[in-house]
Amino acid sequence: MIEKNGVVLVLSGPSGAGKSSLINKISDDIGDFYFSISTTTREMRDGEEEGVHYHFVSKEEFAKDIEDDHFLEHAIVHGNYYGTSLKPVKKALSEGKLVIFDIDVQGNTAVNNRLGDITTSVFITPPSLSELKKRLVNRSTDSEEVIDRRIKMAKREIQRITEYDYIVVNNDLDLAADVLRQIAITARLKIPHDVINDFVQKWEDI
Amino acid sequence: MIEKNGVVLVLSGPSGAGKSSLINKISDDIGDFYFSISTTTREMRDGEEEGVHYHFVSKEEFAKDIEDDHFLEHAIVHGNYYGTSLKPVKKALSEGKLVIFDIDVQGNTAVNNRLGDITTSVFITPPSLSELKKRLVNRSTDSEEVIDRRIKMAKREIQRITEYDYIVVNNDLDLAADVLRQIAITARLKIPHDVINDFVQKWEDI
Repeated sequence: MIEKNGVVLVLSGPSGAGKSSLINKISDDIGDFYFSISTTTREMRDGEEEGVHYHFVSKEEFAKDIEDDHFLEHAIVHGNYYGTSLKPVKKALSEGKLVIFDIDVQGNTAVNNRLGDITTSVFITPPSLSELKKRLVNRSTDSEEVIDRRIKMAKREIQRITEYDYIVVNNDLDLAADVLRQIAITARLKIPHDVINDFVQKWEDI
Repeated sequence: MIEKNGVVLVLSGPSGAGKSSLINKISDDIGDFYFSISTTTREMRDGEEEGVHYHFVSKEEFAKDIEDDHFLEHAIVHGNYYGTSLKPVKKALSEGKLVIFDIDVQGNTAVNNRLGDITTSVFITPPSLSELKKRLVNRSTDSEEVIDRRIKMAKREIQRITEYDYIVVNNDLDLAADVLRQIAITARLKIPHDVINDFVQKWEDI
């Protein structure tokens, strides 16, 4: 029963909610984890690394993995495939790791459809839309057009916030990290349904 | 957002799983809680106390509360009503308490139908059926007939174990208490959907 099994933590929330800062804050306290990264068929750019920025694969491999139902989601952008493959996720789960997804609301639905029994989902939100705008403007990484797009997406996504197990309002980074740490540690206690079913089988046999 | 709001912890599992011992172990560490007790119309017996063993009410009050949809479940036994009323539960929730239910699998479904957004459910099980039998025989409180009934019910209930958020195998009491403590503390982080909806409303207005 107390076998080594991985679990999933989904983090959603607008760009500017502070997801990356929060993960950095708690990363030493949550045990061995694998941060899910996207798979793509586009060429590797200067400074990019396989397994860090993306998993880089050929179009043939990507197409075969779609057929084999390994993708949670995928899309074609400028002729290249991008997607979230479950292949590295399943490997990490078999190693008992906490798999962290930074994924949108649709992605959360997809993860829950596939791995719901071991998934804990968290929506991280800034305290208000005006605060989100301020953060996006202040970090000066995005054009006005990109900021507008992010704001529109945030407004759409927050409408589905009740689909999540937990909401973390990131007003104070330390407080929000305390809450997320607690949730991530407890996420470890989920047991896959197939392991439970094995247990029940043995439970009755004895 | 960080308003005072209560949450619910459902504990299910066979008699003999160690639920009471576990609650005693963690009761100092989980903050202010209310342990849900049944409401009945039967006469109070010697040594019983209102609000400790049962909430004792008149048949009229019980009948009215059924009509007003206050009962999660109720039954008539030997002409007396017994049931789980949400009236004291709602009071405890409004005081920000953790409400603990020791309730069966049907009860868990009923709680989730009514309070699912703030409910965390845990099935506590002995490591095996033979261990359960041993514990029930050793505590010498039940007749052979009662033990047989409890065993049959345990076999039925464990078939629905995957309906729970967490499973705790109570093999070692201290280890099981550590797990349950962690779950109970994290249960506090659930936010009622109406509070979230208010937050979203304000979030967009600013």
